[in-house]
Amino acid sequence: MLIAKVIGNTVATIKDPKLEGRKLLICRETDQTGAPTGKPYVAVDTVNAGVGDLVLTAHGSSGRQTDITKDTPVDAVIMAIIDSLQVDGEVVFRKS
Amino acid sequence: MLIAKVIGNTVATIKDPKLEGRKLLICRETDQTGAPTGKPYVAVDTVNAGVGDLVLTAHGSSGRQTDITKDTPVDAVIMAIIDSLQVDGEVVFRKS
Amino acid sequence: MLIAKVIGNTVATIKDPKLEGRKLLICRETDQTGAPTGKPYVAVDTVNAGVGDLVLTAHGSSGRQTDITKDTPVDAVIMAIIDSLQVDGEVVFRKS
Amino acid sequence: MLIAKVIGNTVATIKDPKLEGRKLLICRETDQTGAPTGKPYVAVDTVNAGVGDLVLTAHGSSGRQTDITKDTPVDAVIMAIIDSLQVDGEVVFRKS
Amino acid sequence: MLIAKVIGNTVATIKDPKLEGRKLLICRETDQTGAPTGKPYVAVDTVNAGVGDLVLTAHGSSGRQTDITKDTPVDAVIMAIIDSLQVDGEVVFRKS
Repeated sequence: MLIAKVIGNTVATIKDPKLEGRKLLICRETDQTGAPTGKPYVAVDTVNAGVGDLVLTAHGSSGRQTDITKDTPVDAVIMAIIDSLQVDGEVVFRKS
Repeated sequence: MLIAKVIGNTVATIKDPKLEGRKLLICRETDQTGAPTGKPYVAVDTVNAGVGDLVLTAHGSSGRQTDITKDTPVDAVIMAIIDSLQVDGEVVFRKS
Repeated sequence: MLIAKVIGNTVATIKDPKLEGRKLLICRETDQTGAPTGKPYVAVDTVNAGVGDLVLTAHGSSGRQTDITKDTPVDAVIMAIIDSLQVDGEVVFRKS
Repeated sequence: MLIAKVIGNTVATIKDPKLEGRKLLICRETDQTGAPTGKPYVAVDTVNAGVGDLVLTAHGSSGRQTDITKDTPVDAVIMAIIDSLQVDGEVVFRKS
Repeated sequence: MLIAKVIGNTVATIKDPKLEGRKLLICRETDQTGAPTGKPYVAVDTVNAGVGDLVLTAHGSSGRQTDITKDTPVDAVIMAIIDSLQVDGEVVFRKS
């Protein structure tokens, strides 16, 4: 899974019918402290995440292993909201 | 999913029979504002997208979860046309 | 799918039995005009492609959705030979 | 599989129910001697690994082929703890 | 598939039970002449390859389409030993 920050959202009226009602959030991959470093991608939210949250995203067919994304044409899903990250015994991120 | 701009199309007479009649569009990945930054790839259109549209593409086995791409040898599908992108509370792209 | 140029072929006597008789071509990813830019990879030919052809390759499990590659340990397949590429309304490649 | 070093862990209260009780470790890809060189990612532990261990991680759908990750929305799993690495006939890493 | 050189091996006592007895070789991706250029990864051997061999590796779920890797948590498999590579009509690699 990637550690990612939710930075925005996407509106799309014309889409595959199976995506109806799905929340499409823009994420950016971060380093191990939660600082955005990577390029943006869009993931379907399944845990009620919001802009500013640090999350975990699962990709590929693994992104379809939730009740919300099963059998849908999506390849990335937000499946956890991160409370804290600990690296080498030190807390490097804590959700405020 | 990747945010991508449709930049062109592909004509291929000799192809896997399951691709007959499929529209093969050339896409380029963009940043979170819709500006093309990445390398090109080809995706099957399922939402009647056209050159100039900003779209979402799903990849890998997820690209086969539409009625049009089911069981076909394609690994990328356009499954949404983007109306707008909002980043950090600001609209950064709106379809004209 | 990737746009790729076929640049060579591979001979391998010792291989998974399911690959017997398969044509293993060396491809290089190209930009949207068909100029090679990426690194090489090997794909199974399913459309009688040859060295010099510009082709489309499908990857991952999608590479196994042809009659020739079904259930075989291959992750890339040539599933179309490109006749022409059109970008922003202009023909940028035409098969000679 | 990637050779990776376990560098930390992740706490996430809000998550897909199928992830309940799973240990989510932060890994960093290494070179062939076990020195971290790549970017971080999160993998589910299935072999009781800990911070500092050098491990192998399997990705994508292969990450779901363990008893612990079956049918769950995870795309990376730690499936082995490395005892030693030998490159060109020389031991370049040995677990202390 | 990737063209890769086998550069070493991995010993791991603690591992997923389905990996028992599997040979885990360290590979490095090469260019089209067989010269190592990429980063290392670990693949399960299914063709009795050894250090120094130039091989083909299949990745992702395709890595599980051999008798040896079926249903196991591995995402890369060596499925062919390369005898020769021919690029633009010239032999650029021949197994010694």
